[in-house]
Amino acid sequence: MIRAGIIGSTGYAGGELVRILTRHKDVEIKWFGSRSYIDQKYASVYQNMFQIVDAVCMDDNMDELAGQVDVIFTATPQGLCASLVNEEILSKVKIIDLSADFRIKDVATYENWYGISHKSPQFIEEAVYGLCEINREDVKKARLIANPGCYTTCSILTAYPLAKEGLIDMSTLIIDAKSGTSGAGRGAKVPNLYCEVNENIKAYGVATHRHTPEIEEQLGYASGEEVVLNFTPHLVPMNRGILATEYAKLTREVSYEEVKAVYDKYYADEKFVRVLDKDVCPETKWVEGSNYVDIGFKIDTRTNRIIMMGAIDNLVKGAAGQAVQNMNLAFGLPEDEGLNLVPMFP
Amino acid sequence: MIRAGIIGSTGYAGGELVRILTRHKDVEIKWFGSRSYIDQKYASVYQNMFQIVDAVCMDDNMDELAGQVDVIFTATPQGLCASLVNEEILSKVKIIDLSADFRIKDVATYENWYGISHKSPQFIEEAVYGLCEINREDVKKARLIANPGCYTTCSILTAYPLAKEGLIDMSTLIIDAKSGTSGAGRGAKVPNLYCEVNENIKAYGVATHRHTPEIEEQLGYASGEEVVLNFTPHLVPMNRGILATEYAKLTREVSYEEVKAVYDKYYADEKFVRVLDKDVCPETKWVEGSNYVDIGFKIDTRTNRIIMMGAIDNLVKGAAGQAVQNMNLAFGLPEDEGLNLVPMFP
Amino acid sequence: MIRAGIIGSTGYAGGELVRILTRHKDVEIKWFGSRSYIDQKYASVYQNMFQIVDAVCMDDNMDELAGQVDVIFTATPQGLCASLVNEEILSKVKIIDLSADFRIKDVATYENWYGISHKSPQFIEEAVYGLCEINREDVKKARLIANPGCYTTCSILTAYPLAKEGLIDMSTLIIDAKSGTSGAGRGAKVPNLYCEVNENIKAYGVATHRHTPEIEEQLGYASGEEVVLNFTPHLVPMNRGILATEYAKLTREVSYEEVKAVYDKYYADEKFVRVLDKDVCPETKWVEGSNYVDIGFKIDTRTNRIIMMGAIDNLVKGAAGQAVQNMNLAFGLPEDEGLNLVPMFP
Amino acid sequence: MIRAGIIGSTGYAGGELVRILTRHKDVEIKWFGSRSYIDQKYASVYQNMFQIVDAVCMDDNMDELAGQVDVIFTATPQGLCASLVNEEILSKVKIIDLSADFRIKDVATYENWYGISHKSPQFIEEAVYGLCEINREDVKKARLIANPGCYTTCSILTAYPLAKEGLIDMSTLIIDAKSGTSGAGRGAKVPNLYCEVNENIKAYGVATHRHTPEIEEQLGYASGEEVVLNFTPHLVPMNRGILATEYAKLTREVSYEEVKAVYDKYYADEKFVRVLDKDVCPETKWVEGSNYVDIGFKIDTRTNRIIMMGAIDNLVKGAAGQAVQNMNLAFGLPEDEGLNLVPMFP
Repeated sequence: MIRAGIIGSTGYAGGELVRILTRHKDVEIKWFGSRSYIDQKYASVYQNMFQIVDAVCMDDNMDELAGQVDVIFTATPQGLCASLVNEEILSKVKIIDLSADFRIKDVATYENWYGISHKSPQFIEEAVYGLCEINREDVKKARLIANPGCYTTCSILTAYPLAKEGLIDMSTLIIDAKSGTSGAGRGAKVPNLYCEVNENIKAYGVATHRHTPEIEEQLGYASGEEVVLNFTPHLVPMNRGILATEYAKLTREVSYEEVKAVYDKYYADEKFVRVLDKDVCPETKWVEGSNYVDIGFKIDTRTNRIIMMGAIDNLVKGAAGQAVQNMNLAFGLPEDEGLNLVPMFP
Repeated sequence: MIRAGIIGSTGYAGGELVRILTRHKDVEIKWFGSRSYIDQKYASVYQNMFQIVDAVCMDDNMDELAGQVDVIFTATPQGLCASLVNEEILSKVKIIDLSADFRIKDVATYENWYGISHKSPQFIEEAVYGLCEINREDVKKARLIANPGCYTTCSILTAYPLAKEGLIDMSTLIIDAKSGTSGAGRGAKVPNLYCEVNENIKAYGVATHRHTPEIEEQLGYASGEEVVLNFTPHLVPMNRGILATEYAKLTREVSYEEVKAVYDKYYADEKFVRVLDKDVCPETKWVEGSNYVDIGFKIDTRTNRIIMMGAIDNLVKGAAGQAVQNMNLAFGLPEDEGLNLVPMFP
Repeated sequence: MIRAGIIGSTGYAGGELVRILTRHKDVEIKWFGSRSYIDQKYASVYQNMFQIVDAVCMDDNMDELAGQVDVIFTATPQGLCASLVNEEILSKVKIIDLSADFRIKDVATYENWYGISHKSPQFIEEAVYGLCEINREDVKKARLIANPGCYTTCSILTAYPLAKEGLIDMSTLIIDAKSGTSGAGRGAKVPNLYCEVNENIKAYGVATHRHTPEIEEQLGYASGEEVVLNFTPHLVPMNRGILATEYAKLTREVSYEEVKAVYDKYYADEKFVRVLDKDVCPETKWVEGSNYVDIGFKIDTRTNRIIMMGAIDNLVKGAAGQAVQNMNLAFGLPEDEGLNLVPMFP
Repeated sequence: MIRAGIIGSTGYAGGELVRILTRHKDVEIKWFGSRSYIDQKYASVYQNMFQIVDAVCMDDNMDELAGQVDVIFTATPQGLCASLVNEEILSKVKIIDLSADFRIKDVATYENWYGISHKSPQFIEEAVYGLCEINREDVKKARLIANPGCYTTCSILTAYPLAKEGLIDMSTLIIDAKSGTSGAGRGAKVPNLYCEVNENIKAYGVATHRHTPEIEEQLGYASGEEVVLNFTPHLVPMNRGILATEYAKLTREVSYEEVKAVYDKYYADEKFVRVLDKDVCPETKWVEGSNYVDIGFKIDTRTNRIIMMGAIDNLVKGAAGQAVQNMNLAFGLPEDEGLNLVPMFP
């Protein structure tokens, strides 16, 4: 039985970790960390867990925690994990960090986009970027896993095969992404109130969103060239789901079948990536509550562009589900253990 | 391995049966019946099942089906199950009917409220009303199970202990219920369009809704007297969930603790019924996607009334989940097999 | 030109006052009070008013304000208006208070339900309860108008004619109300976040909601007896709208036509009350953005109860629209000036 | 008094025409055409109009209608207006067609994208494309006005000044648009059901949507070159609103101030176009119920692209509001008569 601790268990991503791990047959959650709700029953914060979880919330003491568990998930604000981690902790437990602290290899880039100084740059090199479909072998051996961002997971996996195979001109890549509101977290802020989000759509963080360098770095590895792109997130009145619509010029004339074959080359054996049938567009509802990435595409011969579309549940494949997938890999379990979640419709 | 057939597998309740049974370790779905989509891939109708279900939809041939499976679920319009069932079929398979055909013991009452003549009144007596928490032992032996309605499941279980123990004056019972829109089914009708339901709430079927006699009959059994009550359903802009707010005069002065003890007497050992802590009101979101019934109550000494509140997911405990619970009982499986669904939040 | 000041202009009710008064041909808003946004452009808080309102937000100085305007609207938390008002102010301007401070005639009842001590009990007697359809003549002469609550406006008007005419047994009256989320205000609180409200319905304030005594007092005046009733509010995932479903025993056998005639007696000449056709249930969407109250009813001969239903837009007839209606009356303008708002659909 | 007839008055765009014209001081609606609801009271189809509109729905007889009114609005499926119009009708009344029949100057393009043959190609040349801000003078003299599409209105106005001034490379223009569901009309179809749209976002009509050639034609006129672009619409779970996010390479280095000056050159005097303050992104909620177009932009020096964003209410500026604006121009009324609608928030 793997003993797990969660720091930040009462945010939406933390809550989703609890939902998934509660039904994972090889895991026992030993520590429900939550600064905001110390000593309160976890089920009083998330009433859905009533009679399922009996534990009370505890403080965020990573040193103490490291001696009691096998894996620590940090679902915390930027900077916190980097400020807590040290060699002694890493020698005792594996850490799966759902924040951005160890996702970007270049410290300056991190500090520039996030506006904070990095407290543990010495672990950046070691940290493995936990996009399982791409870095599976490294994840298996990792002590410190940087769980990818929600937008980035969706954006990268949607374009990865074509970037890797050189089918798209990376300098033309534009990612227009749409997210449900749980991505904004559970903090009490006016812009996230029901009446402000409902019946509304807007772009935000235009040309400045922090997931941009993460996408650029990973697609840069894939394509073998430096990538600079436009990424525009939008807030959509729904709880869950991210849809990424991606535009790029094709580098040569290709048929539907060729592109499909490229996607299949990378994803045909991937349990959690579903390349949809011809002319079927992904919809976030079709993956809700599951760890799937659904991908579709359309070649537009008029403009010589390809439009790629990817859909995920931001709290599952975009956060907690992928974190559990990483944990499964890192502990030698079947990759889909606890993740055989069927999307819920309607 | 139990072989199951579903007639009406492409309605919302049918789709939920597929979602649940797909992850039930003792069941294999052999027949995806759907008049509307014969020969089409099931996953093209419910894209969430892509790469999970490979089958194509088949016609509603219950005679043929009866020879191939152990249990048939009918998630069909009123009257269809009664028109198809016969002794030969019942001698071969168990039938779990999600329609209202066998829920009401008095044929005249059925025909009066539903406006159709009953095609198989000879099986009404035998049919077991499949409200597991109340009729568990009968369900275990049944060939023909009448799966309760969504509103009725929620309404009955919320009031049952107090009705049974004589704590409430049944002549004063009023049930004001609110339902998500999936309860209206997947038929293409203007009143169910997004723009008509969204940003709107209304009552409907006031004093005439068909679930009324079903509730009255069952609460009549519980209280030992004839029950005539007001039941008012409302349509709420959300996909899933039913909340029943129930009002009744108390027959004597009681304390919170006494009422709590009565609820616990009936439900403390029930896996799927959660009686919430004092002053906690149930919310439909806390049970979404799960088979739970959440119950809360408040005594109002000013009016000598008790306000009871119950919440379910109408497609799970109100339809498919309860149907699977009935199947588990009827086939001697653990009652919660395949139903350990954690509510999804948010 | 009537000069108006609004204290609390950046809450949702305040914002709606601005929306309506901006198009009122006889009013000019001179003071946009908002403690939270002092010196900020009003249109930066409510971007819908960009290029419509150029003013900046000002502090809540009622003394200063009283010298500059003809009418002050207070859309503020409970207790604030009572703490600011005095004889000098009332000698200069009319005050229309959207809070509860002057709605309840009995100070003890107010202090008991609201949990605060009343700072200006000397003005309670003078204050006119501004339910225009009922207290029209008094409103015309008032200096201090207590604008009714949103739930109360809907609840009272729906039952008023039958209470007044003795057709319903007041001891059996139960009001089950459902409200959109703007009723909870613009404060940043976790329970009002999009992800907490969306796809969810719950009761709250069961047997303890503060609008209860206000409803009881007014319906007591109507029926000529002391009224004690159950009022249960529910939070619905929509921005605007209140639906009240009300249940009561009939005091004698009545026909549809008789009840209709009673409603018509009181409302046939009322511009803002629409008694719907037979068997038509009110829907909140049909009154959205307007000052209408839509009313329908159904007699249930089985239970000898009548089910009355009323729908309003909580921010218009339930707050700002009614406040403007009161202002029109108090200043001798046509009652519907600025209020000829057609409901928006969809 | 202008006498107006509406053919297709019970669709969502037709309903919005009724809402607006009902409060237009110079217009009287004489004919509520609706094939689906002939002889039914209009207010029974749109209950919001109860006690506001007393008329019954009539058949779509344009010949008869032409003799009774001064202007006919056709809010009908593609092809209907073209099949009904003729010289005699045009000699009597002005026609404002909300369908696509006369929007595209090249018949072959129309027939190719819409898949139907054009029944009145002889009037295409004469028809004026009713985008008021661009074709104001022509609209004033027109007999036949092609009211622009919802997506197109938003897409064109957002990019127009930069296209006209040569600031953007038209071959790089990509339009990613998001629409509320009222754009899909009131037809009863499964994909438009509440449960299918709610909690979901998807792209549709990728590379094939019919508004594409309309946008290309108009931006081609503006830029003076042939334009071929990508336009991708998305369905968003909200009733109203379109947001267009547009990407293009800048043709030269420009500052924020320069771009702002270009927008101001074209829109500073336009009542219905609001160019927002620096770094403010348009949100559909801020224009809901109004005739405004809100525009914002961001220059991304990293990619040398500009991201332009425009928001409208698809039923107002995207349909009925613009139609009334066209009518006002064509009849010599103040352009904003009846259109001083303040956006509703929340």
